[in-house]
Amino acid sequence: MTAQPYKSWVDSANDHPDFPIQNLPLGIFSRPGQKPRGGVAIGDQILDLQAALDAGLFVGDAAVAAEAASREQLNDFFALGASGRKALRTALLHLLDEHSEQQATMRALGEALLVPMTSCELHLPAHVGDYTDFYVGIHHAQNIGKLFRPDNPLLPNYKHVPIGYHGRSSTLCISGTPVRRPNGQTLPAGQETPSFGPSKRLDYELELGIWLGPGNNMGESIAIGEASNHIAGFCLLNDWSARDVQAWEYQPLGPFLAKNFASSVSPWVITPEALEPFRKPQPARPEGDPQPLSYLLDDADQAAGAFDIELEVLLLTEAMREQGLPPQRLALSNTLNMYWTVAQMVAHHSVGGCKLQPGDLFGSGTLSGPDPDAVGSLLESTNGGKQPLTLASGEQRTFLEDGDEVILRARCRRDGYPTIGFGECRGKVQPAH
Amino acid sequence: MTAQPYKSWVDSANDHPDFPIQNLPLGIFSRPGQKPRGGVAIGDQILDLQAALDAGLFVGDAAVAAEAASREQLNDFFALGASGRKALRTALLHLLDEHSEQQATMRALGEALLVPMTSCELHLPAHVGDYTDFYVGIHHAQNIGKLFRPDNPLLPNYKHVPIGYHGRSSTLCISGTPVRRPNGQTLPAGQETPSFGPSKRLDYELELGIWLGPGNNMGESIAIGEASNHIAGFCLLNDWSARDVQAWEYQPLGPFLAKNFASSVSPWVITPEALEPFRKPQPARPEGDPQPLSYLLDDADQAAGAFDIELEVLLLTEAMREQGLPPQRLALSNTLNMYWTVAQMVAHHSVGGCKLQPGDLFGSGTLSGPDPDAVGSLLESTNGGKQPLTLASGEQRTFLEDGDEVILRARCRRDGYPTIGFGECRGKVQPAH
Repeated sequence: MTAQPYKSWVDSANDHPDFPIQNLPLGIFSRPGQKPRGGVAIGDQILDLQAALDAGLFVGDAAVAAEAASREQLNDFFALGASGRKALRTALLHLLDEHSEQQATMRALGEALLVPMTSCELHLPAHVGDYTDFYVGIHHAQNIGKLFRPDNPLLPNYKHVPIGYHGRSSTLCISGTPVRRPNGQTLPAGQETPSFGPSKRLDYELELGIWLGPGNNMGESIAIGEASNHIAGFCLLNDWSARDVQAWEYQPLGPFLAKNFASSVSPWVITPEALEPFRKPQPARPEGDPQPLSYLLDDADQAAGAFDIELEVLLLTEAMREQGLPPQRLALSNTLNMYWTVAQMVAHHSVGGCKLQPGDLFGSGTLSGPDPDAVGSLLESTNGGKQPLTLASGEQRTFLEDGDEVILRARCRRDGYPTIGFGECRGKVQPAH
Repeated sequence: MTAQPYKSWVDSANDHPDFPIQNLPLGIFSRPGQKPRGGVAIGDQILDLQAALDAGLFVGDAAVAAEAASREQLNDFFALGASGRKALRTALLHLLDEHSEQQATMRALGEALLVPMTSCELHLPAHVGDYTDFYVGIHHAQNIGKLFRPDNPLLPNYKHVPIGYHGRSSTLCISGTPVRRPNGQTLPAGQETPSFGPSKRLDYELELGIWLGPGNNMGESIAIGEASNHIAGFCLLNDWSARDVQAWEYQPLGPFLAKNFASSVSPWVITPEALEPFRKPQPARPEGDPQPLSYLLDDADQAAGAFDIELEVLLLTEAMREQGLPPQRLALSNTLNMYWTVAQMVAHHSVGGCKLQPGDLFGSGTLSGPDPDAVGSLLESTNGGKQPLTLASGEQRTFLEDGDEVILRARCRRDGYPTIGFGECRGKVQPAH
């Protein structure tokens, strides 16, 4: 990391709220009618990695990494691990710097090299072998626990075990994919037999997504001190949830149809290197909380294992669109609300020998803050649907209506350093079949 | 189906306990030093589909299906659905019949066409996109429920919802793969804080595996009347479970590390056509049980949606090996113990729009019978570890010891018809790291 801010000759990158030269996230894009390929976001442009390779802009390890990242999916790039990723980042910083010696060559390539993001389609960054959703947002766990188990909100295992469960990889979808309201079984209040029909309690969940890099063999584990070498990057994740389906189905084996109809992912993979300036000590556990077991404890991880990333949920309804209103913020939270670090999640997931693979995806679980304006789901903000929100459009919401679009954003801010962002994770609710 | 028993010119097929000509299961095998490819089990031999194609033994739809099934994984074959599968079966029945006109051609090909199964390695039949484990064995659900919730063994949703949860696809492994005892967190009886170490309550689970054929799009669903068109075949599945890890971690989101270290799968895909003679009416629900909701109810499925398949668990310990004893049967159960049919599982899984894909795998959940000698896990047969089993070797078992090998078998029997079998699903426990 350099402390000195870079500027780029790509004008839109300077003061860009998400993608200044300090960010350089990777993703998969396609020009109209062309196959998906790997690129790097810089300002409002995408740098085409194959075009840069063809122009001889990369050499050595950076060329190897760029080649792996130029394919239809980033799995091979994720498998390279930190050394290849860092080599590519160093090369990109030099190429895109305002003083780059290759600036003229790159400008001459025009849209073959730098294509406007708005003219491209973005795709899921990788093939996801397995998707795991954790539950490390302790305020969320407490809020939800109060609704389901008023006497016993936080179960005895919570502060010992980074609780997680396996999700559905086939319905992970890229930001912008419409999300159809699911039909399902529910047990309406006061009834003794279940009903079938469209979910009446459709909700979002504000999560940090974690892309896995190099994996481990079945039967082996990843020590917590090594865990950071297995992280490829980060994204936003909306783990859409049908709360009425969930309440009826989740005992004894956990959420199933309530969650497996769609999970939206933001397109850009924010690297650990880009987030390095925003690392923080893991917040101290409240007085009286137990120490983690040793396989979950690492001094370096406790010293700098957390991230200070602002997380935002916004809602745009049909009425707001008609009234010309902008999306309305429903919550502002932060990844410092994670009770467990990402390294602890990796160490725990693999400790029994579960095989992790490049391109696996973790969700953090809903990251609510302690305050009412920082909660990452409607289930929490409406107190289980009992206290509707009033929107700027004059509408009320307990849960999502058809036509509602949920927008997640994430930004990292630090004095004297450019803001970097994740871009958006959007999804609009379609009526049930 | 023909009612007339065929004999094969492949002598070992006649009276073979698993693979007579009436079975013809598909799988992926490799000769020493060669790449995996598709084949068909016949007696103690494997018919090499690529070799048969090269010899011009298939034409038309059968050739298309054989080509898809000859690759490194069966996903493309599964995607073809029933018509291709049936065309291939019809062709294979003619080729392998004792009166086959092409018998001389095939005999002349020797081991290029028919290779002894014992000289080959067998592989997972398909790339599994997602693995889902159900819980349709009602006797198992009752037995387990009694241990975890004595007052409330069967939860109120059980008879309305085909309960399932997402499992881990990365640690599905082929029969014969050693299974390492997992380390993990547990809360030993009487302690207030958890411990870490090798699981002390390692268990097996006797399950039917279901391979998915053609899938559905995200946001769409598969009607129960169409569900059988989405089933590619069946196998045995041992869903290894660390009961002490499970008890401590499973609330509130279900099993995670307790199950994701290994799930063993038998290599041969038994087709719906081979099982057709063993279909039965779904057993009547006990008096007073609710009718399923309409999306789970189909007359044809109720009339013939169940299977009469004997399921067996055997154990072979180190001491038994030393004493020259054969594997000892621990349980004999049957797929008629499924409270929900396979079609009901497919319809339920997809009803909210979850995308199913060719090569997805379902587990039935543990299929215990009502009697003590028919229970599909040690947790049940030892009453939660309180009543040890005494083995023929003189040993006792509550849970699995290192060196124990668990063997699952399945056979279908009917008067006047050859027995067909699934082959074995084996796994031997290795000591923890």
